[in-house]
Amino acid sequence: MLQQLKLHSLPSSSSSTYLSPQNRSFFSPNSLPFSSVTPKPFSITCRHSDLFDNKTFSSTSSPPPPPSSSSVGALPPRVYVGHSIYKGKAALTVTPRPPEFAPLDSGAFKISREGYVLLQFAPAIASRQYDWTRKQVFSLSVGEMGTVISLGARESCEFFHDPMKGKSDEGKVRKVLKVEPLPDGSGHLFNLNVQNKIVNVDENIYIPISKAELTVLSSIFNFIMPYLLGWHTFANSIKPDDSRGGNNANPTYGGDYEWNRM
Amino acid sequence: MLQQLKLHSLPSSSSSTYLSPQNRSFFSPNSLPFSSVTPKPFSITCRHSDLFDNKTFSSTSSPPPPPSSSSVGALPPRVYVGHSIYKGKAALTVTPRPPEFAPLDSGAFKISREGYVLLQFAPAIASRQYDWTRKQVFSLSVGEMGTVISLGARESCEFFHDPMKGKSDEGKVRKVLKVEPLPDGSGHLFNLNVQNKIVNVDENIYIPISKAELTVLSSIFNFIMPYLLGWHTFANSIKPDDSRGGNNANPTYGGDYEWNRM
Amino acid sequence: MLQQLKLHSLPSSSSSTYLSPQNRSFFSPNSLPFSSVTPKPFSITCRHSDLFDNKTFSSTSSPPPPPSSSSVGALPPRVYVGHSIYKGKAALTVTPRPPEFAPLDSGAFKISREGYVLLQFAPAIASRQYDWTRKQVFSLSVGEMGTVISLGARESCEFFHDPMKGKSDEGKVRKVLKVEPLPDGSGHLFNLNVQNKIVNVDENIYIPISKAELTVLSSIFNFIMPYLLGWHTFANSIKPDDSRGGNNANPTYGGDYEWNRM
Amino acid sequence: MLQQLKLHSLPSSSSSTYLSPQNRSFFSPNSLPFSSVTPKPFSITCRHSDLFDNKTFSSTSSPPPPPSSSSVGALPPRVYVGHSIYKGKAALTVTPRPPEFAPLDSGAFKISREGYVLLQFAPAIASRQYDWTRKQVFSLSVGEMGTVISLGARESCEFFHDPMKGKSDEGKVRKVLKVEPLPDGSGHLFNLNVQNKIVNVDENIYIPISKAELTVLSSIFNFIMPYLLGWHTFANSIKPDDSRGGNNANPTYGGDYEWNRM
Repeated sequence: MLQQLKLHSLPSSSSSTYLSPQNRSFFSPNSLPFSSVTPKPFSITCRHSDLFDNKTFSSTSSPPPPPSSSSVGALPPRVYVGHSIYKGKAALTVTPRPPEFAPLDSGAFKISREGYVLLQFAPAIASRQYDWTRKQVFSLSVGEMGTVISLGARESCEFFHDPMKGKSDEGKVRKVLKVEPLPDGSGHLFNLNVQNKIVNVDENIYIPISKAELTVLSSIFNFIMPYLLGWHTFANSIKPDDSRGGNNANPTYGGDYEWNRM
Repeated sequence: MLQQLKLHSLPSSSSSTYLSPQNRSFFSPNSLPFSSVTPKPFSITCRHSDLFDNKTFSSTSSPPPPPSSSSVGALPPRVYVGHSIYKGKAALTVTPRPPEFAPLDSGAFKISREGYVLLQFAPAIASRQYDWTRKQVFSLSVGEMGTVISLGARESCEFFHDPMKGKSDEGKVRKVLKVEPLPDGSGHLFNLNVQNKIVNVDENIYIPISKAELTVLSSIFNFIMPYLLGWHTFANSIKPDDSRGGNNANPTYGGDYEWNRM
Repeated sequence: MLQQLKLHSLPSSSSSTYLSPQNRSFFSPNSLPFSSVTPKPFSITCRHSDLFDNKTFSSTSSPPPPPSSSSVGALPPRVYVGHSIYKGKAALTVTPRPPEFAPLDSGAFKISREGYVLLQFAPAIASRQYDWTRKQVFSLSVGEMGTVISLGARESCEFFHDPMKGKSDEGKVRKVLKVEPLPDGSGHLFNLNVQNKIVNVDENIYIPISKAELTVLSSIFNFIMPYLLGWHTFANSIKPDDSRGGNNANPTYGGDYEWNRM
Repeated sequence: MLQQLKLHSLPSSSSSTYLSPQNRSFFSPNSLPFSSVTPKPFSITCRHSDLFDNKTFSSTSSPPPPPSSSSVGALPPRVYVGHSIYKGKAALTVTPRPPEFAPLDSGAFKISREGYVLLQFAPAIASRQYDWTRKQVFSLSVGEMGTVISLGARESCEFFHDPMKGKSDEGKVRKVLKVEPLPDGSGHLFNLNVQNKIVNVDENIYIPISKAELTVLSSIFNFIMPYLLGWHTFANSIKPDDSRGGNNANPTYGGDYEWNRM
C-alpha cells in the first residue's frame, strides 16, 4: 500500500479563532477601514482552481505595508515582501525584518541587532475575509526559526515573549506561540496566545499549517537566516582583488588566527 | 546486503502519452513546424553515453523561447532558462516565471503576484523526438513546490487548476497534476490531465521522474522560491550604510515592531 | 503519543567550564578590561521573554571585533558578523573567515587558502556574564563543517588540531573539539580542550548546543561554505555576455573538457 | 549505546589505485614535470593537526589551472576554484564548469549547454604526493549531481560516459564512475574506470569519500546547480523597476501563461 498525502483532509475547519471584538481598534495603530473585499485563499489545499488570479489581494485584506518612506535617488526601490497562508479561520503572513548595524570606530560595522521574521496572524471574519486590523504579531528570532525548521512531524514547541521586557510594564503582556502536530499528522497547528493585562485581553488565533506549507516556510527561513545575521555582507566582500585585511594574512585579523595563538 | 539504486530499471517504457492528434494545432498558438530533428535524451538513466553533445537541442524540439523582446540598453541581457527531463514517451521542461511588482504611493513596491514555475509537458512522437507544439502546461505555485519538495518516497499528491477561474468560461477547463510513486520505488510518475469542455478535449501526458531527477527539481525549486516571492529584493537591500528605514529603529517600521505594540 | 521537543529540559546547568584562572591574560593578546556588563542570553530555550532588547551586547561581553582597519573609499564598508549562543556556563560565537587568493601569471586568481569559521568559546563568570578575554578558539574547516552538518542525533565526532604544526613548537599545543550527543537526546555537547605544554595549561570549555541551535549552525555553514571555497566568484562570473573563455567552447578550457580528451 | 562516527576507521588504506605507467604522458596534454613537493592531506580524517598550513599546495601537486586567459579591463578577475579531497591512494578535485549561452534573434540569450562539475582523479605516487599529469577526469552533469546528492548511505550508483559519442571514435572510450557504500558504512567508494581502446588502456582510480566529505560535495553541488543551469541570471533579473516583459503581464510572456491558454 502506498501512503497517500492527505491533502484533502487538511483540517482547516477544525481550527478556531477567538478574538474579542472590542480589541479591534485597540490593536491597530495603522488600521484600515473594514471592507468586503473577498480574497480567495492561496494555499496548497486541493482543488483550488484559482491559483493565480486571486493573488492580487487588495491592501485591505492583506497586511498593509508600512507607511510612506522616502525613496533615496540612487538606491534601488524598497520592496515589501512576505509570504501568506490563508485558511478558513485565520491567515498567517511572514515578513522579514532586517538586522541593525552599528558603526565601529574603525569605520567598519557590526551587527547590533539580528534580523527576524514577523509572524502576523489575522482572524477570518467571513469566508475568505481576514481583518488585518485585528492582527496579532510575533517576532520569530533566527534561533526560533531553527527550532521550527528542525521540528519533526510529531514534535511540538513553544516560544514565550514579553514585548515589555525591561520596561515598566514588564510581565504585563505575555505572548505564547505554540506549534503542535495536527492529530492526523498532516502538519502542525500554530497557536498564538496573547495575554495583555494592561487592556485585560486574552486572545487566541489558530491556523493549521500543512507539511508542505511548513516546507515553504523552512525554505525561506533557511534562505533568509544568513541575511538576518548579516553574513551576506561578509560573503559578498570576499573578492580576489580585495586589498583589505581579509586576505593575504593581513595582521588586522592576525590576533584571532588560531595558528598565531598559543 | 547493500541496497542498489535501480537506475537501470527506470520504467520509462511503462509510461504512456495520450494526445489526440486533432488538438495539435489548437493548443499551439506559437507552434513550430514539425521537424525530424532528433534530440537525444538527457536524463540520469544509466549508460547514457551522450551526456553533453546532445544538449544542443534545436529550438524545434525544446520548448521555444518567447517571441522577441526588445533589449533595453543598460540592462543585462535577458536569459531564458529552464531544466528539461527527457524520457521515452514525454519530456518535461521546468521554467521559472517572475513575480509581479506593484508600486506604492510611497515610491516603494509590493509583490502583486508571486512568481511560479511553468511545467511544460511535451509528448514524444518518435524515439527521442518531442512535439512542443502539442505541449500542455501547468503553473506550479510556490506552495505547490513545497508539496513537491516535501513529498516522501511513498507519498503522492494532486493539484487542481482552472485557468478560466473567475472568467465566463470558469469550470470548462480542468487541469489535474498527479504525482504518484512508481511501483518499484525508483521515483514518481507525473501525470498531467487536461479536460477542456470548450474544445471537447481530454488529454493525458505521463512522465516518470526518478528520485535523482526529483532531487534536482527540489534543489532548483528551493533555490528559486525566495526569488519568486521577491525576498531577494529584501535580502539585497540589507546594507550597513543603508540610511533608510530598515535600520536604526527608524519609525517607518515602528508600527509593526512587536516591542512597540501592546 | 506525540513526541514533545524537550526545550524545557535543555541541560545547560549540567555543562561545566574548567578554565584555570592564571591563563586569563596569557591567552588574550587583544584582551579587554573585565566588566560587569550583564548581557542576557539569546538562545532557543523556552520562556525567554527578552528576545530582542538584550541583543545589543556591549563589546566587552561579546567577542570584540578586530582592531581598526582603514576603510577604502569605493569599497563597501567591512562588516563584522558572527552568531552567538549563550548558555549557563559558556558562550559560543561562530565567525566566518575569508579564503585567501593568490594571483596567477595569467592575471587570474586561485584560492591559496580556504576560508573557515572560527569557533570562539568563552566561559561564564557569573550569571549571563562571559569573559571573552579568556576565550579559546578553534578553526573549523569546510570539511569539518561537513562533519558537523551531517552529524546524526546520536552520533559524535572529534577534531584534533595543532596550531604549531610545522613550526619549532609543533606538538606542544593540542586542541581537541569533541561533539557528543546529550544524554536526553535534546542536542549535542561541544567540548573544546586545549593542552598547551609551553605554558603548562590544560583547559576545557563545555557548552550544550540544542538540536535547533545546531540547525541554525548547519544552515549558516551550508550558506557560507561555497563562499569559503570561493565558488561564488565562479558563480557570479557566469554571464551570457562574458566574452572570456568560459563560454563558447573557448580553447582556454579545452584541455580539460572530457570530450576533447582520450 | 550511542553510535560513534567512525572517523578513525576511514579505510583510506584499503583503496587502491591502478594506473599503468605507460599512459602517463599520453593522458596529459598540459602535463607538468613530476616533482617531489609533498602536500599534506586536507581531509576530515581525525588527528590531522595540519589543517591550514598545508593548504598552499604547489601547482605541481594540485590540478594546474588552465593556461593563461587575457583579463578584460572592466571585468572582475577570473578565479579558478575547486574543492579537493586527499586520501592515501588518490586525490579528487571537483571543479565547476560554466554553462554556455547562445544569442537569440531577440537580443536575449538561451542556455545552449548546461554547466557541470569536472571530477579530476589523481593517483598518489608516494605518501601525500599526487601526480596530476596522470589524472583521469569525469564530467558530472546536473542530473548526475542529483543522483549523488540523493544517494542513501547504503545505496550505490553508476554513470557511463562515452566522450567520443557522435564522433568517428564513438564506442572506443568508455568511462564508468561507480559510487558504492563502504563496507563499514562510513561513506562511499568512488571508482573511476576508463577503458580506451584507441590506446589500449584500462585504468582504475579508487578514492574513499566519507559521509562528511559527501555532505560537503552535496552542499556545493546544491549551491552551484542553479548557476550551472543559468537560473541565477533569471533570479537576478527580477527587479521591481524592470520595465521589460517579465512584469506587469507584458504580452511577451503571455503565450505561455496558463490562464491565457485553453
